[in-house]
Amino acid sequence: MPPTKTNNTKAPPAATGVRALVFDVFGTVVDWRTPVIEAVTAAAQETGAEGDWSVLGRQFADDWKAAYRPAMERVNEGAPWINVDAIMRQRLTEIAGKYGLDGLSAAQRDALNEVWSLARPWSDSVSGLSKLREKYILSTLSNCTFRWMVAMAKAGGLPFDAIMTSEQAGRYKPAPEVYEMAITLMGGDASGLMMVACHNYDLVAAQSHGMKTAFLPRQENGPGQTTDQEPEGAWDVVATDIEDLAVRLGC
Amino acid sequence: MPPTKTNNTKAPPAATGVRALVFDVFGTVVDWRTPVIEAVTAAAQETGAEGDWSVLGRQFADDWKAAYRPAMERVNEGAPWINVDAIMRQRLTEIAGKYGLDGLSAAQRDALNEVWSLARPWSDSVSGLSKLREKYILSTLSNCTFRWMVAMAKAGGLPFDAIMTSEQAGRYKPAPEVYEMAITLMGGDASGLMMVACHNYDLVAAQSHGMKTAFLPRQENGPGQTTDQEPEGAWDVVATDIEDLAVRLGC
Repeated sequence: MPPTKTNNTKAPPAATGVRALVFDVFGTVVDWRTPVIEAVTAAAQETGAEGDWSVLGRQFADDWKAAYRPAMERVNEGAPWINVDAIMRQRLTEIAGKYGLDGLSAAQRDALNEVWSLARPWSDSVSGLSKLREKYILSTLSNCTFRWMVAMAKAGGLPFDAIMTSEQAGRYKPAPEVYEMAITLMGGDASGLMMVACHNYDLVAAQSHGMKTAFLPRQENGPGQTTDQEPEGAWDVVATDIEDLAVRLGC
Repeated sequence: MPPTKTNNTKAPPAATGVRALVFDVFGTVVDWRTPVIEAVTAAAQETGAEGDWSVLGRQFADDWKAAYRPAMERVNEGAPWINVDAIMRQRLTEIAGKYGLDGLSAAQRDALNEVWSLARPWSDSVSGLSKLREKYILSTLSNCTFRWMVAMAKAGGLPFDAIMTSEQAGRYKPAPEVYEMAITLMGGDASGLMMVACHNYDLVAAQSHGMKTAFLPRQENGPGQTTDQEPEGAWDVVATDIEDLAVRLGC
């Protein structure tokens, strides 16, 4: 592939000086919910769990994901580091019984837990990233476990130049350590980095560290999602998806 | 791209259980010396430095590189962290006068220093890595500055799934922290990782941490190089280059 071009003359003034885009991943780049619903529904059928899994599958996925933010907040408040894979594995143990999934063996639960590493790119993600990559350095800046993030990018064909995760900072976004790590590893110039996320809170933090910001809305929690559908700050770019982001950044 | 295959039935017994290959980069994957010789010779012509640069270029490159290992050893002995880019930039200041390059401005020296981020893949590197990537997770585990490593992979089209560098560990290979970081980030199973290097010392350290090892000789220091031309340990795989490594690992 060609070296990164630096004369992105078609990019908007907001992106002047931006060399690298760092992406939130769960929600922003990939759909975690659909594969989780599918996998837990398959596991329920395998173990003979009763109930209407066309409804329970969605409930289970949301109940499972609900552990994510509180566990990360405990780490940011000083609790010992715990990976996202361990957070999700613990939550699976907690809620399995409530859904009649006690029959799943430990090995089956381990396998089911890995579904989080197989979150799927949204339909615009691979094509949009591929265009952006011609002009910018692309990295993740995700709360996901590093190993899972690498597997997800590989399985989904996500053309990132680098994988950075909170695991390497020892804190979770929006803790300052994560953004500071990204800025340091990318050479120290915060304004040369643009954080791309479908979560306003992530952009609030990135902007406070001097990074540029791009917002795009997603319905990661399902068709009824009402949060994070609009920009809630003075973001440098607002796009409809990653394909649109590429257009707005002159790619 | 397809997900990583796990049934690498053609791989030798030595590679059983290996999921990821982690590569030393300077020397093993890229030729740093030729671009450095070319760049410094061009800079000498630009600034009108006297002498026979068909000879001086090689001497300068080797003199410049000579700062690399001692500076890293000082960090491993407890000196404050210093990036490879800063190490090389300092060395450039130290030796420029000796070669009649005092005329280079600070900006010209900064630009010249970046040549280390443009080290070029050996002729077998991109094709060999591309084959290996179908079956294994591929990462760097390099003493290079993270930013430089990302730039080098992008410019050279090196198809790594992840970039790990000593900068993220705060110590340089062969310090334990670097290998421990790689093992942790890749999921904790050292025997599932194979270190690939053209330096025996790197493999000694990797093996001591339970990692598998692959050696391949390079002439990174030029055609006269006599060191590291033979395996000096019981390495799991010995290959002639990365193409050959792919064959030996069943790709």
